[in-house]
Amino acid sequence: MFKCDLKRMAEKIHTFAKFGDAGHGGVTRYSLSPESLQARDYFVERMKAVGAVIETDDVANMYATIPGSDPGAKRIVMGSHCDSVRNGGNYDGILGVMGAMEVLETVKAENIPHKHPLTAMIWTNEEGSLYPPAMMCSGIVCNDYLPPDVAKNFKYEEKMESTSVIDKTTTFGSQLEKFKYKGDKKNRINPEGYKCMFELHIEQGPILEDAGNEIGVVDCVLGMFNYRVSFTGQSAHAGTFPMNKRKDALYAAAKALCYLHEEIDKLGHPELVYTTGELLIHPCVHTVIPDFVEFSFDSRHEKPEVREKVLDIVKSLPQKEWAGCKCEVKEAWKRDTVYWDKKLVGYVEEAAKELGLKYQHINSGAGHDAQFAAYMMPTTMIFVVSKDGLSHCEIEFTSDEQCTDAASVLLNAVLKADAE
Amino acid sequence: MFKCDLKRMAEKIHTFAKFGDAGHGGVTRYSLSPESLQARDYFVERMKAVGAVIETDDVANMYATIPGSDPGAKRIVMGSHCDSVRNGGNYDGILGVMGAMEVLETVKAENIPHKHPLTAMIWTNEEGSLYPPAMMCSGIVCNDYLPPDVAKNFKYEEKMESTSVIDKTTTFGSQLEKFKYKGDKKNRINPEGYKCMFELHIEQGPILEDAGNEIGVVDCVLGMFNYRVSFTGQSAHAGTFPMNKRKDALYAAAKALCYLHEEIDKLGHPELVYTTGELLIHPCVHTVIPDFVEFSFDSRHEKPEVREKVLDIVKSLPQKEWAGCKCEVKEAWKRDTVYWDKKLVGYVEEAAKELGLKYQHINSGAGHDAQFAAYMMPTTMIFVVSKDGLSHCEIEFTSDEQCTDAASVLLNAVLKADAE
Repeated sequence: MFKCDLKRMAEKIHTFAKFGDAGHGGVTRYSLSPESLQARDYFVERMKAVGAVIETDDVANMYATIPGSDPGAKRIVMGSHCDSVRNGGNYDGILGVMGAMEVLETVKAENIPHKHPLTAMIWTNEEGSLYPPAMMCSGIVCNDYLPPDVAKNFKYEEKMESTSVIDKTTTFGSQLEKFKYKGDKKNRINPEGYKCMFELHIEQGPILEDAGNEIGVVDCVLGMFNYRVSFTGQSAHAGTFPMNKRKDALYAAAKALCYLHEEIDKLGHPELVYTTGELLIHPCVHTVIPDFVEFSFDSRHEKPEVREKVLDIVKSLPQKEWAGCKCEVKEAWKRDTVYWDKKLVGYVEEAAKELGLKYQHINSGAGHDAQFAAYMMPTTMIFVVSKDGLSHCEIEFTSDEQCTDAASVLLNAVLKADAE
Repeated sequence: MFKCDLKRMAEKIHTFAKFGDAGHGGVTRYSLSPESLQARDYFVERMKAVGAVIETDDVANMYATIPGSDPGAKRIVMGSHCDSVRNGGNYDGILGVMGAMEVLETVKAENIPHKHPLTAMIWTNEEGSLYPPAMMCSGIVCNDYLPPDVAKNFKYEEKMESTSVIDKTTTFGSQLEKFKYKGDKKNRINPEGYKCMFELHIEQGPILEDAGNEIGVVDCVLGMFNYRVSFTGQSAHAGTFPMNKRKDALYAAAKALCYLHEEIDKLGHPELVYTTGELLIHPCVHTVIPDFVEFSFDSRHEKPEVREKVLDIVKSLPQKEWAGCKCEVKEAWKRDTVYWDKKLVGYVEEAAKELGLKYQHINSGAGHDAQFAAYMMPTTMIFVVSKDGLSHCEIEFTSDEQCTDAASVLLNAVLKADAE
C-alpha cells in the first residue's frame, strides 16, 4: 500500500481556497472567471513540476499526463472540476482535482512503477452556476455516447451560447473564446485513448458521518429530473387593486410550492429528495403585484418508478387553480440512474479496506461529470465524509487528514486498475 | 368654465411615452436616469415656451412658475412625478405633471386672469423603484412637518445613500450629484411661498370604472405599513441532503406567504389590501437549498385598528415554526391615513360638476407626494379613471379625452382657489 502526503495535500487545499475566497471561509469561483484562471494556473504549475504534459480541449477541459512504462497503454484518468457555486466551499469539485494531482505527485516522489500513463483532469463548468446547465462540458465531450434525451441538452453549438441567469451580459461561448485555456477538440477525452476514469469527491450528505465512516464506495449516481414551473398573472398597484380581482403570480407560486411539498411527502419515500433552489420574480418591486414567477424544481431517486410518481404531481400543476394565474411546466433536463463499473468499484473497496479506513457502500445524490464519462469508458467514484453533510455552502468541511486518506484510496485503486 | 385642449394634451401624452419606452406600450423611466432627463428637458422646453421661470431644488424637484396679477400672492402649485416603476405605464405620475403643464398652457393660450402665481411641479423619485423608499423627495422636503415616525424614514443625509435593490452599484446620492437638474435648497417648496397644492393622478384601481364614473374627488390617502420578513436556514446540496434535515428558507417563505393570506383573509375586511411584491433569494441556484429569503409586506386600510390587526399577524410570524428556519420581521416604514383639505376637495367637486363630468368621492389606496405636502399646506388630489383598474404595468390606460377632462377639472379647481 502506498500513502499520500498530508503536508503536500494540505498545501494544495489551503492554496486553492484563496482563489475566489468569498470572505466567510469558502469561495465563489465561477467557471471561466479570473478566479478559475488562478486555480488552473496553479494546477499547471504543480503538474509541470512533476513532469506532466499539459493539454486542453476545445471547451477548456484540462489534462496533465505523466507517462507509464508501456508506451502503447491507454491513459488512466482521475479528475473533477475547479468551479464552484456562488458562496460555495473549498472541497466540492476541487478535492477531486487535488486528489488527482496528489496521486501524480506521490507517484513521482516515491517513484511508484506503473504501466499506464496517468492523467489528472479538470472538467470545465460542472456547476453551471453562471452558465447552465450543470455538467455542461462533460455533456458536450461525451455527447455521442449519451442517451438521446440527455444528449439533446448538451448540443455543442447551442450550448456555447448558453446564457447565465445571474449575469445576462455574457454567454459561455463568448467567455470561452477569451479564455486562456481554450484548446483543441482533438485533445478531448475519448475511449480510444483512455482506459478508465476515477472521480474523488466529498459526499455532500450526512450518511457517512452518521454511520461513523470516512470513505464511501459509490455504486451509482441517482437519476433525476429538473423542471421549470412558471406562473403568469397580472401586475397592478399594491395599494389600489382589490384582493378579489388580483392575479398574483408570487402567491400562486407560494401555494404551488406548499402543494408540491404536501403531495410529494405523501408518497412516503424517505430517500427521495426534491428542491426549488432558484426563483425569478418580475418586476420585484414592493408596490407592484408580481405578474411573473418562475422556479426550478429538481428531484432525485434511484428508482425510475418513484421519479415518475413525483413527475406526475409536477405535471398536474397546470390543471389546478393558482390564484387566477396561468401555470406552465416544462422539462429542463433529466437523467437516468448511472451504475458504476463493478470491477472499479471493487478496487476502491479493496483499497479502502487495505488502508484500514472505515468505509461503506453508498449512492450519489449529486450529479457528477464521471456519470457522463461512464457512457464512454469504465468509471467509478470515491466519496469522503462531509462535516454535517453540508456542501454548496461556505462552511462545507472535510479535514486535511480525511482528504489525504481519500487521495490514498484513489492512488491505490488506480494502481490496481493499472496492474490488470 | 374653462376647458383644456385635447390636441395639446394628447401631444404631451404621446411625447412623454417615448422617454423610456419599454417596448410593450409602457415605460421604464427610473428617477435620475437618462430617460428621466429626457422627460425633464421636454418639461423645461414647453414651460419656457409659456414664459415660466424654471427652478430646481437640492433633490432635483423642479418648479415652473408663471406670475399672477398680485405680486405679493403665494404660489398655487400643481404636480406629480415623472419616474416610473420597472415596466410601468404612460400615466402614473406623469399625468399629474402633464395636467399641470396643460393648466399653464391653457391659462397662457386663453389669457385667463389669475391673482396667484401658478407653478407646475415635478417631484423626484416618487416610485423609489431604483432607490427606495417611495416618495423619497417629498419626504425629504416636507421632513420638518411630518410625524416623527414617518419623518425618520426620510432623513436627508441618510437617504442620500439609499441603495437600490436592482442596481447595487449606484446610490441615490451619487446619481443626484451628477444630475443636470440638481439645484439649490432655497428653492424647496415651503408653506411661506406656496398657498396650496393639487395633484392629478390616475385612480390605479377599478372603482371609478366599475361605477361608470370618470373623475374621483379624493378624500384621503389610506394609511399603510411596509415590513420586511426574512427567513434564515442552511444551504446544502439539492441532491444529497435528506429532506428531514433541511432548513429550506424558500419553503419557509412560501409557507409564511400562504399563512399570511389565510389569516388576514379571516379578518373579513373587503377594502383591506396587502401585497408581497419583492422577494430576494440566496444563492438562487437550482442545485442549492436556499439559505436566505427576504420579502416585502405592504398593507393598507383607512382605519388604524384594521391595520393593527394585520400587523399583529405579521409580527406573530417569528414565534411560529417555519421549516426549521429563523424568521425575523422588521418595519420598513408606515404612515397614517391623510385626509385632504375640505375646502379644496369642495373646489374639485364643484369643478367636476360644472364641467358635467361623472364623478364620485373616493379614497386613495396608493401613496402620493401630495400626502407629505399636506402636512405643510392645504392639499388635495383629483383622480381620473384607469382602464381595468390597472397601473404599475405597461397596459395601464386612460384615454386622451379622459386625461384632458381631468386637466380641465384641475384648471377650474385651481381657479376657484385663486379666486378666494
